Amino acid sequence: MTEPIARKAAVLGAAGFTGKELLRILAAHPLFEVSHVTSDKHVGKTLVETFPDLPRPKKNLTFQLHSDPIPQDAFVFLATPNEVSLERVPELRKKGHRVVDLSGAFRLHDPAQFKEFYKLDHNAMDTMKECVYGIPELYRQKIRTANLIANPGCFPTGVIFPLSILQEFAEDMVGVSIDAKSGVSGAGGRVEDGGFSYSSVYENFRAYKILGHQHWPEIKEYSAAGKLADKIVFTPHLLPLFRGILSTITIFWKKMPELAEKFAHACEGEPFVRLLSAPEDVQLARIQHTNYIDVGIRSRGNVTVIVTAIDNLVKGAAGQAIQNLNLMAGLDETLGLV
Amino acid sequence: MTEPIARKAAVLGAAGFTGKELLRILAAHPLFEVSHVTSDKHVGKTLVETFPDLPRPKKNLTFQLHSDPIPQDAFVFLATPNEVSLERVPELRKKGHRVVDLSGAFRLHDPAQFKEFYKLDHNAMDTMKECVYGIPELYRQKIRTANLIANPGCFPTGVIFPLSILQEFAEDMVGVSIDAKSGVSGAGGRVEDGGFSYSSVYENFRAYKILGHQHWPEIKEYSAAGKLADKIVFTPHLLPLFRGILSTITIFWKKMPELAEKFAHACEGEPFVRLLSAPEDVQLARIQHTNYIDVGIRSRGNVTVIVTAIDNLVKGAAGQAIQNLNLMAGLDETLGLV
Amino acid sequence: MTEPIARKAAVLGAAGFTGKELLRILAAHPLFEVSHVTSDKHVGKTLVETFPDLPRPKKNLTFQLHSDPIPQDAFVFLATPNEVSLERVPELRKKGHRVVDLSGAFRLHDPAQFKEFYKLDHNAMDTMKECVYGIPELYRQKIRTANLIANPGCFPTGVIFPLSILQEFAEDMVGVSIDAKSGVSGAGGRVEDGGFSYSSVYENFRAYKILGHQHWPEIKEYSAAGKLADKIVFTPHLLPLFRGILSTITIFWKKMPELAEKFAHACEGEPFVRLLSAPEDVQLARIQHTNYIDVGIRSRGNVTVIVTAIDNLVKGAAGQAIQNLNLMAGLDETLGLV
Amino acid sequence: MTEPIARKAAVLGAAGFTGKELLRILAAHPLFEVSHVTSDKHVGKTLVETFPDLPRPKKNLTFQLHSDPIPQDAFVFLATPNEVSLERVPELRKKGHRVVDLSGAFRLHDPAQFKEFYKLDHNAMDTMKECVYGIPELYRQKIRTANLIANPGCFPTGVIFPLSILQEFAEDMVGVSIDAKSGVSGAGGRVEDGGFSYSSVYENFRAYKILGHQHWPEIKEYSAAGKLADKIVFTPHLLPLFRGILSTITIFWKKMPELAEKFAHACEGEPFVRLLSAPEDVQLARIQHTNYIDVGIRSRGNVTVIVTAIDNLVKGAAGQAIQNLNLMAGLDETLGLV
Repeated sequence: MTEPIARKAAVLGAAGFTGKELLRILAAHPLFEVSHVTSDKHVGKTLVETFPDLPRPKKNLTFQLHSDPIPQDAFVFLATPNEVSLERVPELRKKGHRVVDLSGAFRLHDPAQFKEFYKLDHNAMDTMKECVYGIPELYRQKIRTANLIANPGCFPTGVIFPLSILQEFAEDMVGVSIDAKSGVSGAGGRVEDGGFSYSSVYENFRAYKILGHQHWPEIKEYSAAGKLADKIVFTPHLLPLFRGILSTITIFWKKMPELAEKFAHACEGEPFVRLLSAPEDVQLARIQHTNYIDVGIRSRGNVTVIVTAIDNLVKGAAGQAIQNLNLMAGLDETLGLV
Repeated sequence: MTEPIARKAAVLGAAGFTGKELLRILAAHPLFEVSHVTSDKHVGKTLVETFPDLPRPKKNLTFQLHSDPIPQDAFVFLATPNEVSLERVPELRKKGHRVVDLSGAFRLHDPAQFKEFYKLDHNAMDTMKECVYGIPELYRQKIRTANLIANPGCFPTGVIFPLSILQEFAEDMVGVSIDAKSGVSGAGGRVEDGGFSYSSVYENFRAYKILGHQHWPEIKEYSAAGKLADKIVFTPHLLPLFRGILSTITIFWKKMPELAEKFAHACEGEPFVRLLSAPEDVQLARIQHTNYIDVGIRSRGNVTVIVTAIDNLVKGAAGQAIQNLNLMAGLDETLGLV
Repeated sequence: MTEPIARKAAVLGAAGFTGKELLRILAAHPLFEVSHVTSDKHVGKTLVETFPDLPRPKKNLTFQLHSDPIPQDAFVFLATPNEVSLERVPELRKKGHRVVDLSGAFRLHDPAQFKEFYKLDHNAMDTMKECVYGIPELYRQKIRTANLIANPGCFPTGVIFPLSILQEFAEDMVGVSIDAKSGVSGAGGRVEDGGFSYSSVYENFRAYKILGHQHWPEIKEYSAAGKLADKIVFTPHLLPLFRGILSTITIFWKKMPELAEKFAHACEGEPFVRLLSAPEDVQLARIQHTNYIDVGIRSRGNVTVIVTAIDNLVKGAAGQAIQNLNLMAGLDETLGLV
Repeated sequence: MTEPIARKAAVLGAAGFTGKELLRILAAHPLFEVSHVTSDKHVGKTLVETFPDLPRPKKNLTFQLHSDPIPQDAFVFLATPNEVSLERVPELRKKGHRVVDLSGAFRLHDPAQFKEFYKLDHNAMDTMKECVYGIPELYRQKIRTANLIANPGCFPTGVIFPLSILQEFAEDMVGVSIDAKSGVSGAGGRVEDGGFSYSSVYENFRAYKILGHQHWPEIKEYSAAGKLADKIVFTPHLLPLFRGILSTITIFWKKMPELAEKFAHACEGEPFVRLLSAPEDVQLARIQHTNYIDVGIRSRGNVTVIVTAIDNLVKGAAGQAIQNLNLMAGLDETLGLV
């Protein structure tokens, strides 16, 4: 193993669900150490008092402001709101930091779409030019040398790789319905206000942001090299549980290709993809707290159903960010990951 | 109000989830009284010791065997396993009882499909001839004079009426994906063994019987007069909660018709259908313990998403059975229902 | 059955958990009809739009302000904050309304205790003089002729009657520990702010207001005629579920009396008390949505454990209020109750 | 750090809740490696197919029978049923293995009590002589040189150390009520059959084995050196969640001693004990997946309430077993633990 390029890590937005998961994973990473954490809300409090349920940190850091100076040479994760990332990422890049941004700020290339779905003006399209979309299963080589990674959204992570296996058959599909169900930690701050009281989630279930969720254009842009953009529908739902996303992808075919071998081939050797023989075995309990994406597939008549599951906080956010970090740092990409 | 045709009700299979719900609703019915209950498992025990959480019954009946004689003139509900209904319904009809069968025994007209999906030989196709499929919104007139009702399955109840509104546009659809999510009481004994321990359901989510569920052919047969049979895919999932089914119907159009007015017109005056302006408002918490079917709809591009929700034990089973009873008995169909 | 004294009911604070439960029960009451509802928060909205999951009301009333005039002759329920009840109840009594107050405003006779536990000055001690504490099992006769009922708190309702059975043995007890566990709807607005997000309740459990809960002095005042005041400890906990309170009462004896017969005798004939043979059978699932209090008891050595369970929204609030209404109106006290 | 005495670990009963947790923790242990796993039920299956949600094991072992030979020099954990431990532990000791037994077989010194609470004859009382009860906070020195550890029960682990702090005041107590609430994984196979279906746990709560649970005599024997044996009552309850035990200890005093300093002193320096300033902060969400025991305390009048929380699978079972292993192996006791 070569000496890692960087060993210090800064986590901006470390007090949210995703930031906390980054801290949890980095605490067990053999080569990186968190040396800087920020939270505008928790500024001045320490890690130990804020997260009594986390492993005891090597250093009991105190939360800084997002805008506070960051240790030189630190590798930087941003688990910040979109508008914070939009502002901070270009600055950090100018100072030479290598960056993984977990917000949605640098995923879409079309400013008009960004405006429509994020309600923000994108004033940093220049920065996007050097940005690599961080799905290791598809862009492993580019990630290794990248200085800026847009870490994919949780919902896109569950579907882009499986759909990309079908890229050459894009013409034969007439419709692709993605029905995704997420735990509360995945729906995060993205559902309308007041929707997260216990009484409104417990013993309840509903769809949200129907035909208007910001992950829809992201899925269209990156699935099958964009060839399915006008065929994909994406509907997210809120599950009464904490962790995990299960996506049911239904494909209507003009003419169904042979798929089994395609999938077996594409998943072979992927350290974090598990192709299961029965799609009913794809379930949240098997992937929670892991970096796996589980995939199952079945066809009948002119229809294929693909079921995938990820932990939205791990493979759908912090775990994939660490996988990207490992690649950028020239390390084994599984380091520190379960 | 005319004098009801029958006032005594017998509930066969009264100790299951559905039978218990029938007892709950009938306890509040102003004109019918339960005079006979059966359960091969609980035979000899009384209602009060078996269901301490039910309203105190007018009479504390003792469970009989399914095969025990039934009070003359009693209206009969069967919430029994398919094989029991298959055997008992023809006998009961011969004795002149009017019957609502809540099992799956008398829903499919094709014996080959019945064999494939229910793993049973259908030896009572004669009886099916007089059988009416009990969706009041579609077959109200026939139900009034019927002597045998096949009460629809819980999943079909959530989608058949909404899809029937689109019947005239069947040609314009290229694919209809029905992604349904049910609480544990709806998945009932229908999921594989051992799948219902707390640890396997809590903080978990999964699809089951993908492209093989017995409600799939039922949905195909009765939706839009069967015109969508080769376009419908149905995928059921198991939610970590007790009560309710939410179905997300995604329709891919060749050419999208005007739908808003169609839906408004079809739902108008239906006592148990509520058309909501936002499909995000369709949620389990709004329909649990009621006989409503809530419906919401949104279109964009060449796609329509319809979201519907029912309580699987009420509108999806016992409530609809009482609605059918009311119609058969010449009563206001909302009697005793919430 | 005699003609009821009043038939119109007003529900102040009808949009909270307790008010909603009052509406649900009154909707099925054969003799009373809700003719006035208030909610300062929902003022101007209708019942149907606010509570789509409630039975369709006979009239689709619009929420008024708490301070709006109330129909003459209406029987009045207050499910309002303590400070609102403190102000409104004396006014309503002056106008001649008969009142059941479900707040905590008129339960404690000691203004100092009221001040300590409710953080409010009690400026209506005069009104308290005519007030009857509404536990029908203990004060049935007084309730019948009362014009003002203080409906007991949810936690007290689960323990006062069982402890009163032991009144003559108060001297023989050295300590009574009441460990109570409530669902979220019972802990209501009484837990500290921000404590009710899904993430803070789900897969969590904790005690709250230890040695400081406002139901503690109420339990002391009314249990065993106050004879146990210095022996009772009360510790409430928050369960990750919606509905129900289970209380585990542990009694340390100097000398243990014979209890079985005492309990059997006291519970006999009580329409809403069920004495179960095994205390393990006392569980929330058996009493949810009912007006029952289930009780089980076991002794060993010098210790007795009593387990009781109620639905906090029914027997612990709205159901008991209706039971009191029935008594006040000269009706069968079970009318409209399950 | 000295070279560890043993590096290979065998886990008997590795397929249960506790065994699985041992595998999870050992997978991250820097010095021990699991080289042998048994499960009479899963014999012949591999770790990876049985536990897809566990970190990928260094070796994908195959489950052996409990009775199969164990690698020489292996340190042995038994997470087996009581009767299996009773038989296997003496054999393993004869072969020279150092052993941590997580069953209840070697905790009680009185064979009559063992018979009463475990329904088994204890035929290995000789083996008990060398057995050390594995609470590091109390018996750290003895554990270091022990060859056989009886790993404490989950409920006792949550209360024995806190109560031992009060040992010198035992005379001043008149009663100690321990009201404990456990998630489903802690109630394990110990609740009556059929009690763990989703429908029987969800939205439910109840006490079990009242005045008859096998952890009661264990708590009496080891708390405050047995001085509280006739004053302690223990009542376990089943929570509708997966992981964690919260215990509410209510102490009635003749004369209350000064406690705050006592507790501060006893907890100081303990790596896995956290004394919190408010007992309301002791909650399951703060200790799940950790080896901590959180403790909070408050007194008023003649009563003290102590609240403690542990993760039943970690500090209450597998984590404490690893802590004991570390001590026995001459290692830092926190190694591999969170």
